[in-house]
Amino acid sequence: MTSRYGTRPTMKDVAAAAGVALKTVSRVVNDEPGVTAGTAERVRAAITELGFRRNDSARLLRTGSTSSIALLLEDIGDPFSSALSRAVEDIAAERGCLLFTGSSGEDARRERDLALAFCARRVDGLVVVPAGDDHRYLLPETEAGTPVVFLDRPAGGIDADTILSDNAGGARDGVAHLIRHGHTRIGFIGDLPRIHTSAERLRGYRRAMADAGLPVDERWIATGPTDPAHVTAALTRLTSAPQPVTALFTANNRITLAALHRLAHHRDRPALVGFDDLELAELLRPGLTVVAQDPAALGATAARTLFDRLGGDASPARRIEIPTRLIARGSGELPPPAR
Amino acid sequence: MTSRYGTRPTMKDVAAAAGVALKTVSRVVNDEPGVTAGTAERVRAAITELGFRRNDSARLLRTGSTSSIALLLEDIGDPFSSALSRAVEDIAAERGCLLFTGSSGEDARRERDLALAFCARRVDGLVVVPAGDDHRYLLPETEAGTPVVFLDRPAGGIDADTILSDNAGGARDGVAHLIRHGHTRIGFIGDLPRIHTSAERLRGYRRAMADAGLPVDERWIATGPTDPAHVTAALTRLTSAPQPVTALFTANNRITLAALHRLAHHRDRPALVGFDDLELAELLRPGLTVVAQDPAALGATAARTLFDRLGGDASPARRIEIPTRLIARGSGELPPPAR
Repeated sequence: MTSRYGTRPTMKDVAAAAGVALKTVSRVVNDEPGVTAGTAERVRAAITELGFRRNDSARLLRTGSTSSIALLLEDIGDPFSSALSRAVEDIAAERGCLLFTGSSGEDARRERDLALAFCARRVDGLVVVPAGDDHRYLLPETEAGTPVVFLDRPAGGIDADTILSDNAGGARDGVAHLIRHGHTRIGFIGDLPRIHTSAERLRGYRRAMADAGLPVDERWIATGPTDPAHVTAALTRLTSAPQPVTALFTANNRITLAALHRLAHHRDRPALVGFDDLELAELLRPGLTVVAQDPAALGATAARTLFDRLGGDASPARRIEIPTRLIARGSGELPPPAR
Repeated sequence: MTSRYGTRPTMKDVAAAAGVALKTVSRVVNDEPGVTAGTAERVRAAITELGFRRNDSARLLRTGSTSSIALLLEDIGDPFSSALSRAVEDIAAERGCLLFTGSSGEDARRERDLALAFCARRVDGLVVVPAGDDHRYLLPETEAGTPVVFLDRPAGGIDADTILSDNAGGARDGVAHLIRHGHTRIGFIGDLPRIHTSAERLRGYRRAMADAGLPVDERWIATGPTDPAHVTAALTRLTSAPQPVTALFTANNRITLAALHRLAHHRDRPALVGFDDLELAELLRPGLTVVAQDPAALGATAARTLFDRLGGDASPARRIEIPTRLIARGSGELPPPAR
């Protein structure tokens, strides 16, 4: 058997260089008692001299824990995902645990491949932002003792801990805010309806309209891909109808961004509330009113739940909803045009 | 020896369930020839039935490669870091390689702890955005055959591949742009001067001023922590002096952000060019003129260099500079106030 690491010094080399038994080196490396100060000093000098490093992968494999967890995201390059990632990493670091990250790119197949690859490395646990809606492929892993926590969207076909934003409640708050500012014809631009968060936010929109006794014209609702071309087309359709909408609820950060670009040169701007906060939102004129999620709380709660399970918590699966927060900055308080 | 994974089915269990020899199971699992279709089918049925999963950690440990690399960032939650991360992940995925990520938080000690923890897991290679300036601690790793590529900032005390933005050139371009628009008193607000990127950007500022034959008043230069309070204080000092600066160069995204907040209600706004692009930059009024880095190219180049080394490339260490790009959107084209 050949190895790239054939040139690495072993404990045996250290023992030979220090003139001690292998077991003595092992004791020094693992901070075990039974070695005199002078001998330990000699072993440490040999370790430094030879550049010996303990192989944690081999050591951890023997203990059955790899002190690593994996986080499967939609896209690590997205600000929402990266904020989740930072929160999970901070909790993992407190536990001396290293973090694998991977991006599924909204592809159920890639989610599955990555999740199983992480499990095959025997990560201690997994936090998954689902791309697909069937997670039975993880049952053998959870049954073998690898906990999985789902984040941002629920799992399918598997009973597991799930940490979500209050998507329906947040959207309801945002739309109710527009209604309070005098709007009755309110457009909704959302992601693909098969995506849980998108469906929930649409549900919140309908709830707010119903609560206010306002009818919903189905032509006010546009769901689909969130690339700028699709969002721009939807926005143009909603605002140039004979009876145009006077306000918009944009159901995620990518949609809000595309809408802002389209509206930059728009006369009689409709009021706008977006789901998700954006970095420069308060510097825009008008400032951008948003329903902000709390990615730090989402990520930290998911990670803590995972470590609770690793610590032996065998209580029934939890579903935790993290509140959202309406931040009024101007765009959501624009009145409808005078009749 | 006890193990959390004691309940996982083993190849032995599969062999017993399928009524075949252990070697036969091993052949099926590893796609080796010498098994009839009928037997393979029976083994696969037993694998599904029992929920057997190959242990890649053990298997990879025997081959000497772990098919994983690690990326050490300043802060995975920062947009620049997350864009680097996505680019590295994409290249790693093409190679069937999984990615560890970790954040040093500008702490040299934490950088070292994380880097050595990743090496102790025997990652195949390491991409490091340095927090510290002494990387001799990695010499035993590189000598043992684990390549390390440094990204965004150079390493200290070790001869290794380094991928950088053209920090000095980019800053020079940004300041020259302000000079072309009539400014002669130009302020520079930068990060701590011990940080390489900060020092290089200041060098670019001085170069542009010298190239134009303009004197630099040292009171125009403010370097230090990049929290909003420090940046706001520096900006106030620069713009309220008896002879105030008429333009500003802000040397990274956090500083630009803090400056924009401070300037939002400022009369006679100084012209502004920022290093690093921001998501809503073109929607501001005036639009934000920036010197944009290319994090996708930085990350991809670092990852490709690492895989070249893993593929056996033993040529001397490279230093690659990725160009920056000036994007004029309005704030950098504001003229100095009429005398």
